[in-house]
Amino acid sequence: MSQAITLIKIGGNVIDQLAMTTLVLQQVAQFTQVGRQVVLVHGGGKLATRLAEQLNIPQTLVDGRRITDAATLDIATMVYAGTINKNLVAQLQALGTNAIGLTGADANTITATLRPKNPIDFGFVGDVTPSGVNIKSLTALLQAGLTPVFCSLTHDGQGQLLNTNADTLAQVLAIALAQVAQVELLYLFEKKGVLRNQEDEESLIASISPTLAEELIVAGVITAGMIPKIRNATYAVSQGVHQVVIGSPAHLPAILAGHELACTRIYAQ
Amino acid sequence: MSQAITLIKIGGNVIDQLAMTTLVLQQVAQFTQVGRQVVLVHGGGKLATRLAEQLNIPQTLVDGRRITDAATLDIATMVYAGTINKNLVAQLQALGTNAIGLTGADANTITATLRPKNPIDFGFVGDVTPSGVNIKSLTALLQAGLTPVFCSLTHDGQGQLLNTNADTLAQVLAIALAQVAQVELLYLFEKKGVLRNQEDEESLIASISPTLAEELIVAGVITAGMIPKIRNATYAVSQGVHQVVIGSPAHLPAILAGHELACTRIYAQ
Repeated sequence: MSQAITLIKIGGNVIDQLAMTTLVLQQVAQFTQVGRQVVLVHGGGKLATRLAEQLNIPQTLVDGRRITDAATLDIATMVYAGTINKNLVAQLQALGTNAIGLTGADANTITATLRPKNPIDFGFVGDVTPSGVNIKSLTALLQAGLTPVFCSLTHDGQGQLLNTNADTLAQVLAIALAQVAQVELLYLFEKKGVLRNQEDEESLIASISPTLAEELIVAGVITAGMIPKIRNATYAVSQGVHQVVIGSPAHLPAILAGHELACTRIYAQ
Repeated sequence: MSQAITLIKIGGNVIDQLAMTTLVLQQVAQFTQVGRQVVLVHGGGKLATRLAEQLNIPQTLVDGRRITDAATLDIATMVYAGTINKNLVAQLQALGTNAIGLTGADANTITATLRPKNPIDFGFVGDVTPSGVNIKSLTALLQAGLTPVFCSLTHDGQGQLLNTNADTLAQVLAIALAQVAQVELLYLFEKKGVLRNQEDEESLIASISPTLAEELIVAGVITAGMIPKIRNATYAVSQGVHQVVIGSPAHLPAILAGHELACTRIYAQ
């Protein structure tokens, strides 16, 4: 454990708000200026949905999850790897951070497996595990002083790009990098953290262990989209990630200063 | 001059033809498998024009040159840095070449200057010179065993992506890299080389010096779009690039074997 890496995942709701994104990029720049290694992972946001509408490409949802047909993969490649990724990189460069934008295909950093077509054919969706992360390639980039900015696309190693869940991609990167560094994983989204009452930021649950997480899911306190996020987080800490934070860019200084009520922190125990 | 670098630029007409592109990628893979360093630069092709049409974004031309307004830059970012770049990278990975897709913003590899707005405002167009190439950053990637794949986007270092002529970008990269390696620059397009008669591949001009190039331009043998291409080439060899080739992917083996009538070669003298 010769070094520390901060892995920051920003969701679509952050991407969609320029002020939120700027707060994150400024923090990344502050980190890299003092020599702290950062990896940024970003999701999609409304841009991809809007482009699909403009191009009259129907989006098929099964059980609330989007099917990535060929046209949808093209849109993801244009918007995630093109528009969003390259603008984030250019903005980080302006802040003095030597960013490099990546899909999993670039420098062969992340290889995924096409999701099995049964019971549901999700199309060009790639499932990732920590063993698909090319740690050597990634640490070479970090050691060259670069700040990787990943969009949520991977490849199968056979020439096919694949759409991959950004939360999972961040988790898998964190677990893999935990083999060579102390890794902190920050999931930044539009809320202060895990809330007992979605309308009340004061209802923040400041600290969650894997056991408590399951209790909260059973009790119906953690629901819907937060369930996979929390399970991503608890699995990460069970696999060597030092700490997972779920919080908002608006509270980044307090989160990083360790303030107890600034976010939700997930520890191994 | 401790090493040799082959810089290959493929134009839009190559990108638009899968078989042509495949020939180039297979050659790149052959090179990298024997340890030869390659840099690939690609232009746009019809995909960007088609997307602009689909999105009803009018393309403004002044003197036959496209104006890059904000919407057109977005399209370039989506298509060049997204679709084309990432699919080339994924295909190279499948062939065993450890490619990494880049704009000039990535790893701060190429900084450009916004083209002056007088006499014509071309919009978000970046002019590049060899001094804008970050040789240290680029050689670090090459030394890490990576094969850079550049699309024709750069940045101004202030957060703005810029559209840059792909031929010029390839030339500027070649001149800059000639400071640290023996560089060969291949412009691959849909014809065998510079032809006296556009309809007759047998009319190939196999070898051109800078002096002959100007004579052929004055005599009206080299015309239209070939003039900037040739001047790009003669300037490159005047600035230390070992050799420039203008030719077709279809003749790559013969070109590389040094066959005299396989392409047009431009030498310093």
